[in-house]
Amino acid sequence: MEDSYNKAGVLVQALPYIQRYTNKTIVVKYGGNAMVSGELKDAVISDIVLLSLVGIHVVLVHGGGPEISQMLDKIGKQSRFVNGLRYTDAETMDIVQMVLSGKVNKDLVSLIQKKGGSAVGLCGLDGSLIQAKKLEEPGVDYGYVGEITDVNIAPIVDALEDGYIPVVATVAEGVDDDCCYNINADTAAAKIAEALGALKVVLLTDVRGVLRDAADEASLISVIRAGEVDLLKRDGVIKGGMIPKIDCCVNALRGGVGRAYIIDGRVPHSILVEMLTDEGIGTMIVGDKDALK
Amino acid sequence: MEDSYNKAGVLVQALPYIQRYTNKTIVVKYGGNAMVSGELKDAVISDIVLLSLVGIHVVLVHGGGPEISQMLDKIGKQSRFVNGLRYTDAETMDIVQMVLSGKVNKDLVSLIQKKGGSAVGLCGLDGSLIQAKKLEEPGVDYGYVGEITDVNIAPIVDALEDGYIPVVATVAEGVDDDCCYNINADTAAAKIAEALGALKVVLLTDVRGVLRDAADEASLISVIRAGEVDLLKRDGVIKGGMIPKIDCCVNALRGGVGRAYIIDGRVPHSILVEMLTDEGIGTMIVGDKDALK
Amino acid sequence: MEDSYNKAGVLVQALPYIQRYTNKTIVVKYGGNAMVSGELKDAVISDIVLLSLVGIHVVLVHGGGPEISQMLDKIGKQSRFVNGLRYTDAETMDIVQMVLSGKVNKDLVSLIQKKGGSAVGLCGLDGSLIQAKKLEEPGVDYGYVGEITDVNIAPIVDALEDGYIPVVATVAEGVDDDCCYNINADTAAAKIAEALGALKVVLLTDVRGVLRDAADEASLISVIRAGEVDLLKRDGVIKGGMIPKIDCCVNALRGGVGRAYIIDGRVPHSILVEMLTDEGIGTMIVGDKDALK
Amino acid sequence: MEDSYNKAGVLVQALPYIQRYTNKTIVVKYGGNAMVSGELKDAVISDIVLLSLVGIHVVLVHGGGPEISQMLDKIGKQSRFVNGLRYTDAETMDIVQMVLSGKVNKDLVSLIQKKGGSAVGLCGLDGSLIQAKKLEEPGVDYGYVGEITDVNIAPIVDALEDGYIPVVATVAEGVDDDCCYNINADTAAAKIAEALGALKVVLLTDVRGVLRDAADEASLISVIRAGEVDLLKRDGVIKGGMIPKIDCCVNALRGGVGRAYIIDGRVPHSILVEMLTDEGIGTMIVGDKDALK
Amino acid sequence: MEDSYNKAGVLVQALPYIQRYTNKTIVVKYGGNAMVSGELKDAVISDIVLLSLVGIHVVLVHGGGPEISQMLDKIGKQSRFVNGLRYTDAETMDIVQMVLSGKVNKDLVSLIQKKGGSAVGLCGLDGSLIQAKKLEEPGVDYGYVGEITDVNIAPIVDALEDGYIPVVATVAEGVDDDCCYNINADTAAAKIAEALGALKVVLLTDVRGVLRDAADEASLISVIRAGEVDLLKRDGVIKGGMIPKIDCCVNALRGGVGRAYIIDGRVPHSILVEMLTDEGIGTMIVGDKDALK
Amino acid sequence: MEDSYNKAGVLVQALPYIQRYTNKTIVVKYGGNAMVSGELKDAVISDIVLLSLVGIHVVLVHGGGPEISQMLDKIGKQSRFVNGLRYTDAETMDIVQMVLSGKVNKDLVSLIQKKGGSAVGLCGLDGSLIQAKKLEEPGVDYGYVGEITDVNIAPIVDALEDGYIPVVATVAEGVDDDCCYNINADTAAAKIAEALGALKVVLLTDVRGVLRDAADEASLISVIRAGEVDLLKRDGVIKGGMIPKIDCCVNALRGGVGRAYIIDGRVPHSILVEMLTDEGIGTMIVGDKDALK
Repeated sequence: MEDSYNKAGVLVQALPYIQRYTNKTIVVKYGGNAMVSGELKDAVISDIVLLSLVGIHVVLVHGGGPEISQMLDKIGKQSRFVNGLRYTDAETMDIVQMVLSGKVNKDLVSLIQKKGGSAVGLCGLDGSLIQAKKLEEPGVDYGYVGEITDVNIAPIVDALEDGYIPVVATVAEGVDDDCCYNINADTAAAKIAEALGALKVVLLTDVRGVLRDAADEASLISVIRAGEVDLLKRDGVIKGGMIPKIDCCVNALRGGVGRAYIIDGRVPHSILVEMLTDEGIGTMIVGDKDALK
Repeated sequence: MEDSYNKAGVLVQALPYIQRYTNKTIVVKYGGNAMVSGELKDAVISDIVLLSLVGIHVVLVHGGGPEISQMLDKIGKQSRFVNGLRYTDAETMDIVQMVLSGKVNKDLVSLIQKKGGSAVGLCGLDGSLIQAKKLEEPGVDYGYVGEITDVNIAPIVDALEDGYIPVVATVAEGVDDDCCYNINADTAAAKIAEALGALKVVLLTDVRGVLRDAADEASLISVIRAGEVDLLKRDGVIKGGMIPKIDCCVNALRGGVGRAYIIDGRVPHSILVEMLTDEGIGTMIVGDKDALK
Repeated sequence: MEDSYNKAGVLVQALPYIQRYTNKTIVVKYGGNAMVSGELKDAVISDIVLLSLVGIHVVLVHGGGPEISQMLDKIGKQSRFVNGLRYTDAETMDIVQMVLSGKVNKDLVSLIQKKGGSAVGLCGLDGSLIQAKKLEEPGVDYGYVGEITDVNIAPIVDALEDGYIPVVATVAEGVDDDCCYNINADTAAAKIAEALGALKVVLLTDVRGVLRDAADEASLISVIRAGEVDLLKRDGVIKGGMIPKIDCCVNALRGGVGRAYIIDGRVPHSILVEMLTDEGIGTMIVGDKDALK
Repeated sequence: MEDSYNKAGVLVQALPYIQRYTNKTIVVKYGGNAMVSGELKDAVISDIVLLSLVGIHVVLVHGGGPEISQMLDKIGKQSRFVNGLRYTDAETMDIVQMVLSGKVNKDLVSLIQKKGGSAVGLCGLDGSLIQAKKLEEPGVDYGYVGEITDVNIAPIVDALEDGYIPVVATVAEGVDDDCCYNINADTAAAKIAEALGALKVVLLTDVRGVLRDAADEASLISVIRAGEVDLLKRDGVIKGGMIPKIDCCVNALRGGVGRAYIIDGRVPHSILVEMLTDEGIGTMIVGDKDALK
Repeated sequence: MEDSYNKAGVLVQALPYIQRYTNKTIVVKYGGNAMVSGELKDAVISDIVLLSLVGIHVVLVHGGGPEISQMLDKIGKQSRFVNGLRYTDAETMDIVQMVLSGKVNKDLVSLIQKKGGSAVGLCGLDGSLIQAKKLEEPGVDYGYVGEITDVNIAPIVDALEDGYIPVVATVAEGVDDDCCYNINADTAAAKIAEALGALKVVLLTDVRGVLRDAADEASLISVIRAGEVDLLKRDGVIKGGMIPKIDCCVNALRGGVGRAYIIDGRVPHSILVEMLTDEGIGTMIVGDKDALK
Repeated sequence: MEDSYNKAGVLVQALPYIQRYTNKTIVVKYGGNAMVSGELKDAVISDIVLLSLVGIHVVLVHGGGPEISQMLDKIGKQSRFVNGLRYTDAETMDIVQMVLSGKVNKDLVSLIQKKGGSAVGLCGLDGSLIQAKKLEEPGVDYGYVGEITDVNIAPIVDALEDGYIPVVATVAEGVDDDCCYNINADTAAAKIAEALGALKVVLLTDVRGVLRDAADEASLISVIRAGEVDLLKRDGVIKGGMIPKIDCCVNALRGGVGRAYIIDGRVPHSILVEMLTDEGIGTMIVGDKDALK
C-alpha cells in the first residue's frame, strides 16, 4: 500500500511538467554509450515513447560513429579523423549514408514500433530536410563533411502531425551539387531545434554534464547561463569535446530554443528524470534572462 | 540517483496503461469520504487532472449527500430516508439542486482549475443532459427522486472536445413535467458511461472493495465476473449498500462499458494507482468473456 | 387575409435587422421584475431563443437578488446592504453561489431547453470565466463582493460555437486567493460584452429607460451619446441606481461594444421589439461618432 | 405599445416554424402573375431572402413563359402550343435558353442581391445539373421539349454550402446528344426537390389552391392526401392545368419530399404566411401517413 | 517507338511549367475567331480543361459581339458603334444580357462539361461579381456601356474551390442604379485577374501578337516591358485596336498580375503551346523588373 | 508552328488519361536496368514526378539486387542464390537493409527532390509498414527471406496526403520476432497495391513484356486476361522469371487492383507512354471481365 502511494506520488509529481511541455517540441540528440548498450537503448526508447505519449512532440536525432567505423573495418578501410571530425571521402560517404540512414535509423524506428510507439525514419535527403555545403576551413580538407545551410522542417512537422516520432539521420543534401554530406549530429539537433522553434534540445552524452572539477562528478554545474560560457571556457571548465556541444547549445538558445541540456546517457532513463521529475541530473544551459522557474 | 531511477521506473510502468487508455473515456463517480477530507479531495482532483493530461477523457460525476443534509439542517428541515433513498419533497428538491449544481459542482470545477486543469460544471438540466421520470415503486413514495429515462451525451461530448473535464451534478430534467429530479450518483455515472460507450466506470467508495469476509480487508476479491454476481449475492458476500453499486456496474457492462471498478476513496490517489500502475487496489467487475489482459 | 398580410409585413420588417445582427454577439443582462413574473420570464426566454435561432449569438447574464434574500431568510440570516451592495460574508457567499449558479442559472437553462432552445449554465468558476479580487473602497468593507480583474471568454465562445446559449451566473473566481466573489450582474454583462467584442449589450431593467422627467414616461430619452452622460448626471437626469447602469454602458462602449441599451423588462418581448422592429422602446447609449443608421 | 406587442407576437409565433425548418431545404417554383407584377416580385424575393436568412436552404426554380413569348414576338415568330406545351424548334430553343438563363434568371439573381441576399443563377447546363432526353409521346412531336433523366445536385449543394440562394432556369443538357431541352418548371422543381431530399416543394400559382367548387374561393381544400388524388380527379375537382401540378407534387412525395404546397402567388408574401405563420393559405399535399403535426 | 519517345518528351517538357503554375490562377479572355470556328472552339476548350486538370485555376472570361449583332439583326435593330464601342440602349442591353449570359456563356459551360471538365456560368450579376457605373466621356453617350467600379471575387473563388471552371459573361450590376451594364471583355478579364491576384492574364485575339511590321508576321515582338509601351505607341507599333488591349495588360501588371499575354486565337491550342511548351507564340507583356526566367 | 501544334496534340491526347487517373493510386515497381543506367533513371524519375504532378498518387517500390551484391563483394562475402532467391544470413540481412533503405532508397528520394518532386523514403520498418515471417518451404532454407503477412498502409497514405511520393524499400519487420526480412520487390509492390486498393500496379522489367515467341519482340502480347494465364504457362509462353511476376499481377488483380502492367524499363519514359498516351508498349494483365475501355 505504501508502495502504491509512492508510485502515485511520482506520477503526480510529473503532472506540472507534463502540463508545461504538452504540445511542445523537444529535440533529443541520441548517441554515445546509450546507443551501444542494449539495456540503455531500451531505456532511452521507452523514455521517448512515454514523452510522445503524454503529448510532447519528440524528434530523435542520431549519429552512429561506432557503427560507421565497424562497417569501414569490414570493407577494410581505415577510419581517419581530422580535428576530431571523420575525414569523409566519397566511398566513406556512401558507407556513412548507408549505415546511418539504412541501419542505425531504421533499427531505432523498429525499436520504437516494438515498444508501442509510432515512428518514421528520415534523413536529410527526405523532403530536402537538411541542406548543406562542404565545410570549408583554411588549410584543412574534411572531404564530404558538411555545414548546414538550411533546414526544411516540413517533413518533420508532417510526421509529427501524422502522429509519428520522426527519427532523423544526419546525412544532408548538397545544396550546390549532387553530393551528400556527413553532418555532426549535435549540430544537426541544435539546428533542427532552432528551425522548429523547439522548447528544448537535449544532448545525450557519455559524461555527467559540465563538471567544475573533471575528476569529481559531485562538482556538476547544474545551470549555466549563455553569458557565462566564455568565462567557463577561459577558466578551462568547458574544454575539449564539451566545447562544440556547449556552442551548439548556445547557438540554439540564440536561435530561439527555450533551454538546452547536456545529460548523461549512461544513466538509465536520464531523459525522463530530467524532463518529468523535480530532479535535474545534467547541465542545463539557459538564456541570460531565463527566470529559472 | 537510485531514487531518480526508481521514479523513472514508475513512469515507465505507466506507459502501457497510458497507451491503452489514451483517447478513451473513463467515468468516475466521486463521493463519500474522498469528498469530505480536504487532503483526499486534493489527491482525487490531482489524479483526474493527470489522467486528463495524458489524453484520457475523464468525466467526473458526483453526489453530495452530506452537503445536502447540512443545508437542510440550516433551514431547519429534517433529512428523511426511505429504503436508503432521501425522501425529496419540493422544498428539498430545490435545496438538492442548489447544493449539488451550485455548490459542490462548482467547487470541484474551481479546484480543477486551480490545479491547472480545465473544467466546466454541468447538471442534468444543461442541454437536457439527464432526463428522468418519477421513481415509482408500489406502496412507496420517494417524492422527487427520479429514474433516468434518457441521457443526451451532447453537452458532455462537446465539453470533452473543447478540452474541458465535464463535472456532472446528478439533477435531472423531468421528461413529462416541469419538475427536476434527484438522481442517485452511482446510477447516473453508470448510465452516462453506458451512453458514452466509456471504456471504464469507476465508483469511489468508502470500503476496500468487495470483501469475501467483511471483517478482513485482506479478503478483497480483485476480480468479479458479471456472471458470478448472483452467486455472490446469494452467499451474502455482496450485500447491503454494495448491492446497488454492483448492479450499476453489471448494467454498465451489459450496456457496453468495458470494465467497472469499485475502489477505495479513502486511499490517496487510489484512482491513479488503479489506472496507471500494475497494482489493482479495489474490485474490478468484468464481462464473462473478458480475457483479463 | 388582411391579418396574414400584416403578419408577413412584421416578418419582412425584421429582415434588415436580422441581416445586420446575424453571426454577431449580443449580451443580455437579465434581472428584476422580468425574472420574477412567470409570464414575463416566458416572454424573455422566447425572445432569447428566437434571436438565437435567427443566427444571433446571445449570451444571457443574470443576477438573482430576490432569490438570494429569500434563501438567506430561510436560514434566518438578515440581508445587509452597504452603499446599495449586498454585504457578503463567507456564509452569505456560499448562499449566493448556491442560489445563483445552482438554482436561478439552471432554472433558466431548463426553461430555454423547454422552449426548444439549447443552453448550458456557466458561472465565473467554469473555465475561470470571471476572475476577480476583493472590491476595495476606503473605509468600507463589502465582504466577498468582487471587482472583475479578467474575463476568459473561452468557455462562452466554446458554448456558442457548440450551438448553446450560454447562461452566466455572476460568481467569480478569486484571482489571488481560493475565495469566490459576488459580482454585480450589470457590470459583469458589460465586461463580458467588452471581452467578447459584442455588437450590443442590453440591460433589462424595471424602468422605461432614462426619463427626462422621472414622473413622465413619455419623457423617455431614446438616444444618449456617451459624451452627453456627464451633463445629464450634472442635471440630475441620470441619477440614483441609473448611474452605475449608465456607467457600465459607457465603459462597454469605450471597450469596443457597438451599442448599449437600457430597456424595460416589464414590457413583454421588449428585447424582440428593440432588436427586430423599427420601434425602439428604451434608451440606447451610443458612441459620440455613431452615425445612428 | 400595443402595436409593438403584436409585432413581437408575430415574431414569436414564427419561432417553432423556424426551429423546424432551419437547415432544411425548401424548393420554390416561381412563376405566373407573381413574376409579372413588380410589387408581387418584390414580395416574393423578400420572402425568399428572409427564409434564407433564418437558416432555411431555399432553392428558387423558375420558368418564364410570357418573357419567351414576348421575345419570340420580337423576332416575328409565332408561339405554338401542343397539348399545353410550347412546341420548341431549334430556333425557339435558342430563344428559350437565352430568355430563361440570361434574362429572367439573372434578373432574379440581381433582385435578390439588391434586397441583401446572396444568389447565383444556374441553369441545367451548369455542372450538368439537369439532364434530359426528348419527350416522346406517340403521334406527337414537341420538338426540343425534354423529359428529365437525371438531376446532378452538386452545383446546387455547392452553392447552398457557399451561402448562396441558387436560382435555377429549367434548360436541360441533352444526355444523348449535344442539344439543349426546354423543361417544364413545375416538374423540374419537383424533381430537384426529390433529388435534394427536400423538406418541402412549393408551387406558386395563379389560383387559391385546389377548390372543391371552382367558382367559390372559400371552398379551398387545405389538405389533400396523396391517396385521395385519384378520387378527386375522377370527381373533377382536380382538373385541367391543376392535374400536372398535383401529379408533380405526388411524385415528389413518393420520391421522399416531406410535403408539397400549391399556393397563390397573387397574394403578397403568401410563401412567408404559409411557411412561418399558423395560417395555411393554399393546398398542402401530404403523404398518406403524414401525422399532420 | 520513336514516336512514343517523342510524345513522352513533350509531356516531360511540360513538367516544369505545370510545376510552376499548379494552384495558380490564370484568367483567359476568350473571344474573336476562336469563338466562331467550331474546331478552334473545341481546341480552346480542350486546352482549358487540360490546364484545369493539371491543377491550374482557370477563369474563362468571354464576350460575344457577333452573337449580339446577329440577335439584334433578328429583332430588326441596327448595331451601332461609337468610338468602337457598341452603343447600348435599354433594348440592346436586354439583348446583350440575354445573349452573353444565357446563350454564349451557357454554351461554353455545356461544351466544357461535354469535354469532361466541370463548369458553372456566371455573369457580373451573380453574387454582385462585377459592379459598374455608366461610362462617362465628355460629349459622348454610349448608353448602358459601363465602367467597372468593383470586382467581388467571392463567386469566382467559391466556384474554383468547389472544383468548377468559372465562365464569366461580362454583364455588370449597376452600383448606383437598378440597371445592368455592358462591359468590354478585355477590361473585365484584366480587372478580374487583378482582383484575384492572378499569375497570368491571357487575351486571345485574331492577330499573331504585336508586330513590329504589321505586314510581316515574322516581325512579332515576343516580349514587351510595361515601360516600353509608351514608346511603342509613339512609334506607331502599338496602334488601333491593340492600344486598349495593351493598356488592359499594363493595368493588370500594375495591379499585381504576374504577366499578360496577347496570343493568336486562330492557331489551334495556342493557349497550351504558350503555357506548357518552351515555345512562346504571342506577345508577352511583363513588368519592368521581371527577370524573364 | 507545325511543331507547336504537334506538341499541343500530345498534351491534349494525355487529357482523358489524366482525367481517368487523377486522385487514383498507381504503384510502380522499379528495378533492373532502368535503375542502373543513369539516363534511364533520370527518365523514370521524370515520369514519376510528372504523374505525381498531374494529380496521380504514385508509390515507388524498389529493389536493389546489384547494389547489394556489390556491397557484399566489398566485404568479401559471396552472394548465394537458392531457387533464384538470395540466401540471406544475418550478416547479409544487415547489408540488405543498409543498402536498400539507406543507399538505394535515399538516392531515389534525393533524385526526385532534385527534379522538383517531393519524396520521403520508407522501408517496411517505418510505421510497421511491411510485416513478414520467415518464408518456409519444405526442404529449403532461404535464411531471412520473408513472406509478407500484413501491409499497414498508414505511413504510405500519410505521406501521399502530405504531398510526398513515398519511395519504399522492401525490408520487412518480423511479425513474430525481432528480425528483419528481405522481401521480393515485385511481390511487395503487388501486395502494397492490393492493400491500397490501387488502380494499377506497374512492374518495370528488362524485357518487352510477355512475348509469344521469346526471340521475336514483335510477338508481344498486349493484353492477357487473368483466366488465360494458366494456359499460357502450360504452353510455355509464360516461363522462367516471368512466372512469379505474372503471379504477382494476377494476385493483385484478385485482391482488387484494377490492372497490372509488365513494361520495358529499358525504353526511356516507358511509364509515361504506357500511362498517358494511346500507345501501350508492354503487356497489360486484366481481370476476366475487364471491358478494356
